[in-house]
Amino acid sequence: MTKTFKPPRGTRDLMPEKYKTWQKLFDTMQEVAERYGYQPIETPDFEYFDMLAAKGGGGEEIKEQIYYFKDKSERELGLRFDMTAPIARVVASNPQLPKPIKYYYISKLWRYERPQRGRFREFWQFGVELIGTKEAISDAEVIAVGVDILKELGLNPETIKIFISHRKVLEGFVKSLGVPENKILDTFRIIDKKEKISREKLAEKLRKCGVPNDEVNKVFDLLELKGNPQVILKEAKETLPKNALLEEGLRNLKAIFQELDYYGMLKFCILDLGIARGLDYYTDTVFEAFEVEDTRKVGSSIFGGGRYDDLIETYGGESTPATGWAMGIGRLTNLLAKKDLLPDVSAAPKIFVATVSHKIREKAIEILQKLRREKIEADIDLKDRSLGDQLSHADSEEIPYVVIVGQRDLKKEQVTVKDMNTGKEEKVNLDALIPVLSEKIRE
Amino acid sequence: MTKTFKPPRGTRDLMPEKYKTWQKLFDTMQEVAERYGYQPIETPDFEYFDMLAAKGGGGEEIKEQIYYFKDKSERELGLRFDMTAPIARVVASNPQLPKPIKYYYISKLWRYERPQRGRFREFWQFGVELIGTKEAISDAEVIAVGVDILKELGLNPETIKIFISHRKVLEGFVKSLGVPENKILDTFRIIDKKEKISREKLAEKLRKCGVPNDEVNKVFDLLELKGNPQVILKEAKETLPKNALLEEGLRNLKAIFQELDYYGMLKFCILDLGIARGLDYYTDTVFEAFEVEDTRKVGSSIFGGGRYDDLIETYGGESTPATGWAMGIGRLTNLLAKKDLLPDVSAAPKIFVATVSHKIREKAIEILQKLRREKIEADIDLKDRSLGDQLSHADSEEIPYVVIVGQRDLKKEQVTVKDMNTGKEEKVNLDALIPVLSEKIRE
Repeated sequence: MTKTFKPPRGTRDLMPEKYKTWQKLFDTMQEVAERYGYQPIETPDFEYFDMLAAKGGGGEEIKEQIYYFKDKSERELGLRFDMTAPIARVVASNPQLPKPIKYYYISKLWRYERPQRGRFREFWQFGVELIGTKEAISDAEVIAVGVDILKELGLNPETIKIFISHRKVLEGFVKSLGVPENKILDTFRIIDKKEKISREKLAEKLRKCGVPNDEVNKVFDLLELKGNPQVILKEAKETLPKNALLEEGLRNLKAIFQELDYYGMLKFCILDLGIARGLDYYTDTVFEAFEVEDTRKVGSSIFGGGRYDDLIETYGGESTPATGWAMGIGRLTNLLAKKDLLPDVSAAPKIFVATVSHKIREKAIEILQKLRREKIEADIDLKDRSLGDQLSHADSEEIPYVVIVGQRDLKKEQVTVKDMNTGKEEKVNLDALIPVLSEKIRE
Repeated sequence: MTKTFKPPRGTRDLMPEKYKTWQKLFDTMQEVAERYGYQPIETPDFEYFDMLAAKGGGGEEIKEQIYYFKDKSERELGLRFDMTAPIARVVASNPQLPKPIKYYYISKLWRYERPQRGRFREFWQFGVELIGTKEAISDAEVIAVGVDILKELGLNPETIKIFISHRKVLEGFVKSLGVPENKILDTFRIIDKKEKISREKLAEKLRKCGVPNDEVNKVFDLLELKGNPQVILKEAKETLPKNALLEEGLRNLKAIFQELDYYGMLKFCILDLGIARGLDYYTDTVFEAFEVEDTRKVGSSIFGGGRYDDLIETYGGESTPATGWAMGIGRLTNLLAKKDLLPDVSAAPKIFVATVSHKIREKAIEILQKLRREKIEADIDLKDRSLGDQLSHADSEEIPYVVIVGQRDLKKEQVTVKDMNTGKEEKVNLDALIPVLSEKIRE
């Protein structure tokens, strides 16, 4: 016995049933995004490493988290770990593209993490990027695309909410507490992990970033500012320190929530200053969609994103504002399964053309091909089986109708159509076969 | 000015227009394959290197032709260079799957070759694999799927032909000339390159494989056996040496052409013993589709494949016969472009909702979202432009209809619909807007 082979660690094969489910979900996402005017784009699976590791993009430390390798000419490469950076690269090197640019993607990505239950090193994301506009309406638009996708998939404001925050509010706040410029991003990464580590640990990490010991609780208080945007914005204005950056963030949040109201999305949205996001490149809004129970987050985020006004410049482009988000197909599928909302991918009923004897195979194949030309999915025996074996094969494949082609019937220009559920057989004239079968499978 | 970044050497970005064209072509392929009962499958982009390099699969020498790398735990990996091997791996390790198995795929592949005009290191293939049947009808079925896809795309028997050959005929023949077992595959690879090298070079290479000097011309004669299957099969029987393997191959070819006749595909098919294919794993039929001018091949093959009855055993599975083919999207697109058959991917006409003043934006967004809910692609100004600028934007984007939302109209529950081609404007009641626009864009 020779060795068998598995997919590499952290990856998996997508067998038809799961893959068809995903394709159907991606079809919905694509359809909604196109209604909003987004166009598909795709980039290579690997990039030059210095692009992935650009400061403000992945940063040098990304090397430990990705598949890094060299080609045969010693060029340093890496498998892409997100699509925002490659798309920013495309826009940076194509300044002639008219703005705003609206892209969506359905792409495979890779991260070299410890594989865990439901967490793979190879994974798929759908996402949108809206590039070239700074206005609050743009942030509302990308959030609206995400909400409309989730609505189209059957989710509602009772099961899903978008939690929206602002990097400038957080930055202004922690700066006012004394956190130095070079520790700001670290602070965001700590806040991003706040549900995964203990309060004590969180406090310790914040102190290391320069938050004075007796101010740590103020950070905790800020992270609790969550709820109805009007109420929270008022509270934030009254209780938070006066600080230009922070106030700019609050004004921007207010404008975005106003637009979200116009878009009819307010019932899906919560202001939550506890959201920070882990990536370096966000400059303004950051947001994450979560399953909710009584407005409390359940599990991990379904999609997440934010505004990244500096990233295109990072890749050598003109200064270009941009906003967008990405959704992992895995978590979404889990949520939809839990809510019993997964799309039905059972194949359309198909027809099996069975042959009574070898002699009439020419006619049987003619019938088979005629069905297929009419876009009816049809199969024939490929293994030279007896009629009985053909019928049991059709039965085990749950094929609803079998067309039995035999010499005696053919002399009368007929075939026998067998309903595999009832066992009933009927003679059908050859020239009526297509309409008769079309009607049966449409039932 | 910071550095700009390019896609890695040999790869490219797929911008919306090209990507949408490809998607449309893939949609057609998928639709035809599904009519024939094929199901989608996808595997990881990289595999363990020892799987890619398995003897009978890629072989150890594949290392020089692929992207080879190690993960952080020193596991040897490689980017996949075809889909037949990974799918054979899946089938080998899932012996419970009922046969026949019918898979199709739309997948990215990588080969580390010198990039040339129209030849990329990252490329896409569509393909089908029919696994678990040995009968001639199976080879005819997979060829029929390929032909039906090309027909569906607008190609006809005058522009495209499938050239069909048989490894057992070639093997039996060169063995009868004295080529030793361990040089057979080399001979196939030489024959596969016959249009790329000179006759002298070809003769020299064949001699090196053990073809006696005065028999080289016999090989050339064999490679010229091409044309109507009945004629060529008769000629082959009369002129080729008696040899069990060769005769088995001829019998198989005869049976397959018989089935192709039943499938109505004969006018697309040519018997051509000059086809050998370069890959090691083929055991019986090999075939390639080419553009033709007066039945003479033009350019490179559009799709190619064959039977590989030993490959699943190579990956540790039970002995399982299989056949299939793969089609590169690049060459197909070039051919369709040449024949003016590329699908139209111009977006459905969309609507632009223009606002006269900032004040009525709430109402404008309400109209915008209503259109999108009706699956009408619609856009609004995201850059706070004047009405004039909004109209010129819509004009430059070739948007056919603009809905102008203004305060005076709104008081009468109306908006103005402007036909951008004629410049004509009309007042439309808000509650009639969807039907009016739906009809306009359907025209």
